[in-house]
Amino acid sequence: MHLLLPGLELAGTFVFAISGAMAAVQKRLDIFGLAVLAFATGTVGGITRDLLIGATPPLAIADMRYGVTTMVAAGLVFFAHRLVEHVTRPVAIFDAAGLSLFAVGGSIRALEYGISPVMAAVMGMITGIGGGIMRDVLIARMPMVLAPTELYATPALLGSTIAVIGVTFGWPFVPTTVCGALSCFFVRYMAMRHGWCLPLPRGAR
Amino acid sequence: MHLLLPGLELAGTFVFAISGAMAAVQKRLDIFGLAVLAFATGTVGGITRDLLIGATPPLAIADMRYGVTTMVAAGLVFFAHRLVEHVTRPVAIFDAAGLSLFAVGGSIRALEYGISPVMAAVMGMITGIGGGIMRDVLIARMPMVLAPTELYATPALLGSTIAVIGVTFGWPFVPTTVCGALSCFFVRYMAMRHGWCLPLPRGAR
Amino acid sequence: MHLLLPGLELAGTFVFAISGAMAAVQKRLDIFGLAVLAFATGTVGGITRDLLIGATPPLAIADMRYGVTTMVAAGLVFFAHRLVEHVTRPVAIFDAAGLSLFAVGGSIRALEYGISPVMAAVMGMITGIGGGIMRDVLIARMPMVLAPTELYATPALLGSTIAVIGVTFGWPFVPTTVCGALSCFFVRYMAMRHGWCLPLPRGAR
Repeated sequence: MHLLLPGLELAGTFVFAISGAMAAVQKRLDIFGLAVLAFATGTVGGITRDLLIGATPPLAIADMRYGVTTMVAAGLVFFAHRLVEHVTRPVAIFDAAGLSLFAVGGSIRALEYGISPVMAAVMGMITGIGGGIMRDVLIARMPMVLAPTELYATPALLGSTIAVIGVTFGWPFVPTTVCGALSCFFVRYMAMRHGWCLPLPRGAR
Repeated sequence: MHLLLPGLELAGTFVFAISGAMAAVQKRLDIFGLAVLAFATGTVGGITRDLLIGATPPLAIADMRYGVTTMVAAGLVFFAHRLVEHVTRPVAIFDAAGLSLFAVGGSIRALEYGISPVMAAVMGMITGIGGGIMRDVLIARMPMVLAPTELYATPALLGSTIAVIGVTFGWPFVPTTVCGALSCFFVRYMAMRHGWCLPLPRGAR
Repeated sequence: MHLLLPGLELAGTFVFAISGAMAAVQKRLDIFGLAVLAFATGTVGGITRDLLIGATPPLAIADMRYGVTTMVAAGLVFFAHRLVEHVTRPVAIFDAAGLSLFAVGGSIRALEYGISPVMAAVMGMITGIGGGIMRDVLIARMPMVLAPTELYATPALLGSTIAVIGVTFGWPFVPTTVCGALSCFFVRYMAMRHGWCLPLPRGAR
């Protein structure tokens, strides 16, 4: 599992970078703006987590593969964004997979740096949603993850919580993390299919 | 005072979290967006300060009580935001109190980490205003603290400056910090009552 | 060169702070909002770089001269913004110079902290463009550097890349860094004069 994690995290980085680059295309940014949005969306979640847990320099800065991965995604979207548009369904599924991997991997990394279990679960969620928040802040719109549409952060928090509970109580590592990632993926997928969403405050105007 | 400070800081965190959650209600966010805004508004000022002075992991991440406090505030607003609306006057006074405590506590923490006096005063101000700035960035509006309405950051800077001067010159700790906090509170309160504001650039269009 | 660098970096900080303060005047902010925008625009690029490479507290916090420099710029704009408006041409040239110095100096500082060459070049670019991004986020508009108008980040990346290559291969320090800075300055200047810009994605709507 420890050998798999980096590869899976890079896959998540790639998918998130795609989503950032697509947002840049919609905003008619040039190739540089597109590259920045791809890099930010793919890595800011993990960078924020690493800054908060004191793991500097952050993985995405210290390890070149993250930057390269986001640039490959940026290049793909730059030259073939019409094609990428037609595969939104697979991309959404990859995005759910990326979210799951980031949430579980992020919370475990936080635990390794001595963060308390509750906050480690929050760190996992931040790893999953931070990139999308930065993408939306950079194009000056309200972060989609905050808007009451579909469940997005909640499955991430669910997955990271399961992983944290398992590691804290010494359950076997592989089944625990797989279970956390699958839970996140399942809830996110069902939310997409069935439009699950969270309650609003009572009587909100 | 050192025993009181954590309790008072948590009280400030609580009030700021309320203000973030109320902004989420106005923006019709769901319970998750509300929780994020509560957490960000209550803790980002202190987190920013801790990242800048090199105190990682930041207090609000390392110490679970901060997260729990913001979640209590979020729950309160979620279930009773109509009630909270009716107590804006007390909330504004608590907010002034929170600002005072954050400004003084933040600058002293910066001094403890070896930051120079001038920058320590700035760190105190950032502790006080950082959360509100993040709240406004997240809902894509210009930070209220930057807009030329009422004095807000200036009292914070006043309070943190008094605390820094006192500590730097070795004045007695308790009276100095109390005096800094009260100065901040007094100026903020008078600004609210009488609409005090800062000058604009001459001939600004 | 090592003796010159700090002075040149402070000059860059000054010019960027001017640009932040001018944005505040346009948005009719009061003297405090103006000071915050001046400080943020002048220092956030370097602060972001320092947080990312693990150099805490960041130079702009640890060294008072940065804060003082931005406050001098803020005061100048506050009292004489009409005058500053009439010297936009020199300011644009100083801005290009600041960009060049930040890009080269930022990448060298990243190398000194053990960051890999590719990422060190990116850090140089971030040092150059970070302040402007923060300025635009704070006044809730899309960062100008992302918009497809003139080349801005690309010359920064060019300059930092040249510096990084030179240092990595052990070329003589002074000519390499001067060459990097001049390349950045030249391309930025030509882009301003001739409206050079980057390609958009093919068929972008």
